[in-house]
Amino acid sequence: MPDITYAKRFDGISGSAIREIFKLIAQPDMISFAGGNPSPSALPDAEAARIAQQVLLEDGKRILQYGATEGYPPFVESLKPYAENAIGCALPCVLPVTGSTQAMDLLCKALIDPGDAILVEDPSFLGNLQCMKLYQAKLVPVPSDENGLLPDALEEAMREHHPKLLYVIPNFQNPTGKTLAAERREKIVELAAKYHVVVAEDDPYRDLRYRGTPLPSLKSFDRDGWVVFLGSFSKIISPGMRVGFMAGDAGLLRKCTMGKQSSDLHTASLTQAIVDRFLREGFLPGHIERIRADYAKQCDAMLAELETFPEGVRFTRPDGGLFIWVELPEGIDAQPLLTKAIERKVAFVPGTNFYALGGHTNTLRLNFSNSSIGQIRTGMAALRDLVREAL
Amino acid sequence: MPDITYAKRFDGISGSAIREIFKLIAQPDMISFAGGNPSPSALPDAEAARIAQQVLLEDGKRILQYGATEGYPPFVESLKPYAENAIGCALPCVLPVTGSTQAMDLLCKALIDPGDAILVEDPSFLGNLQCMKLYQAKLVPVPSDENGLLPDALEEAMREHHPKLLYVIPNFQNPTGKTLAAERREKIVELAAKYHVVVAEDDPYRDLRYRGTPLPSLKSFDRDGWVVFLGSFSKIISPGMRVGFMAGDAGLLRKCTMGKQSSDLHTASLTQAIVDRFLREGFLPGHIERIRADYAKQCDAMLAELETFPEGVRFTRPDGGLFIWVELPEGIDAQPLLTKAIERKVAFVPGTNFYALGGHTNTLRLNFSNSSIGQIRTGMAALRDLVREAL
Repeated sequence: MPDITYAKRFDGISGSAIREIFKLIAQPDMISFAGGNPSPSALPDAEAARIAQQVLLEDGKRILQYGATEGYPPFVESLKPYAENAIGCALPCVLPVTGSTQAMDLLCKALIDPGDAILVEDPSFLGNLQCMKLYQAKLVPVPSDENGLLPDALEEAMREHHPKLLYVIPNFQNPTGKTLAAERREKIVELAAKYHVVVAEDDPYRDLRYRGTPLPSLKSFDRDGWVVFLGSFSKIISPGMRVGFMAGDAGLLRKCTMGKQSSDLHTASLTQAIVDRFLREGFLPGHIERIRADYAKQCDAMLAELETFPEGVRFTRPDGGLFIWVELPEGIDAQPLLTKAIERKVAFVPGTNFYALGGHTNTLRLNFSNSSIGQIRTGMAALRDLVREAL
Repeated sequence: MPDITYAKRFDGISGSAIREIFKLIAQPDMISFAGGNPSPSALPDAEAARIAQQVLLEDGKRILQYGATEGYPPFVESLKPYAENAIGCALPCVLPVTGSTQAMDLLCKALIDPGDAILVEDPSFLGNLQCMKLYQAKLVPVPSDENGLLPDALEEAMREHHPKLLYVIPNFQNPTGKTLAAERREKIVELAAKYHVVVAEDDPYRDLRYRGTPLPSLKSFDRDGWVVFLGSFSKIISPGMRVGFMAGDAGLLRKCTMGKQSSDLHTASLTQAIVDRFLREGFLPGHIERIRADYAKQCDAMLAELETFPEGVRFTRPDGGLFIWVELPEGIDAQPLLTKAIERKVAFVPGTNFYALGGHTNTLRLNFSNSSIGQIRTGMAALRDLVREAL
């Protein structure tokens, strides 16, 4: 084995803890509340098969040839009005990317030198925290309450740390399921303009609202161009397709495009063409309606189970999305609980992994989209027993 | 427009010069010797349409769901024997990636801190040179003769610069069309082990040999694991699909996998499944035979035209690949020549763009794969006239 010296960006990076969990849960008859996977029934395989064949028969020579980094032209054309409608404002520029994971990577590539500060929610999506760490950013967690980020704490952090970037998931946040209040959205955009901070508004769960009224996007309050919106088709069409987009200031997206040129040259034209066709056929509204109805029931079933957990167990009641966040009584560590849960064929993610600075070992994240009502009842009963035993 | 401070990695990066040329040549009836595009007739659109539908009908739920960063399992399974056969040796590990462009990006991510030296051929593939520059590497060009890199110069550069990486395209190099001699391959692998330098063996043109005997890969001489092979399906199936692979040491590929997790999570499973099916159906040998026969004729036609160019014009006679390299008499600058050529509806890439340190303004790269014999005759006649005028 060669004795290779790796780049410093990997110092202290051991790979995602979630990945190790995924290896454990690959066993059959495991009930997994661990991932963020859509339900298999939400994945339109028959439609995708028909569309894939169709686009290749109709435009195959262009789809198989090298494409532009800026995206497959018909998709860029259909994406702009789609995104403007979803985000609720005119957009100067949209860029198709290979999943919104790539959007985060390109933003860091464009903006972050080692040591630059990024403000993050506490807890936040661990995949993107790892991305920021690989750019050797200084992660600065900003506190929240049940309505999301606290604007005063945010302003203080902006003043103190001069961050390049604020990363926020405003709707049904991953991992907490919390939604950022409308008036705070407006305030945050004002602060971003005042302190010259790019805001990455990551909004993959927007369409998965089960109750309450949709709130305006941060981008819709953005007069000065500091907000870049990260969009995803992973939760409403297919994550395996790896198609997402960025929308925002043309100058910033130009830098991201230059970065993308040497990241992967362009996103596969075939997957762009398939998503384009889904948009043009008007597939999404009815499909979203169907999966929303299912997920709402699964969410309610999990919440009903959590009601029967021992006193002292607290949990969020999300208005949408894929996750419920649980706080166990102080002193109960979610990691040994997971070990026991896996023996009983139930999995979740310990919450400590979502904190930029670790700690909070008594928290955990539950996903309900990828389990049937029956699995939710069985799995939650096992977890309830384990929590009782741990008390 | 927001006043954004970008990361230092973009200092001095203005986007690829080739991209600007591509915008100019997007006009209809342009004869383009500029890109590296496969011929439209080499793109198997009907087969891809059938296969895309088939894999989605047979394994659609898995293809549309989140996949592993390590690759779509059936593809990993078919890729390993394919790659071992192509490379001519046992491989400890293969990793599917989103085109070999991503392979280069992941290698730099794994290895390069700002200021680290990378040894490159002079000239070399400009897309990957830009990738290295974005990692703020110090690019050290190593001289070649008609048989590729000079081992003595290479050893001197290794001793002097302590590089992390050597980047080499051994077969029908981009941009020169030169092939690295077999005995030098062995010597280079020895030097890499001696000086602890990872060798990135980028070999997208291997199957496009028009004359002579295939040479052993660098990887096949590699006993200590310093060589990582970058493979591509862009020239033999489809570049728009964005599927390539890396093969080499498991530890290095594990770091690349961790980097890929936050680059794009995984390569689209659909495009991996399509390439997998092409491999399993045994499509490649006959297909390669066909496109090789066509490209050989196109290459010969371009060489025959170059024979009629004014004395003092020198050019390579590649044994395969997609490119011919031309040196004009000293003092003729390829950039103004290009401006005039575009007026006459002919395009190429000025060679200076392929040199890590610029210069060599009297050189240019010609591609023959994407033009018919007729277009080659017409386009080369126009170039010949322009060179005559410039003398």
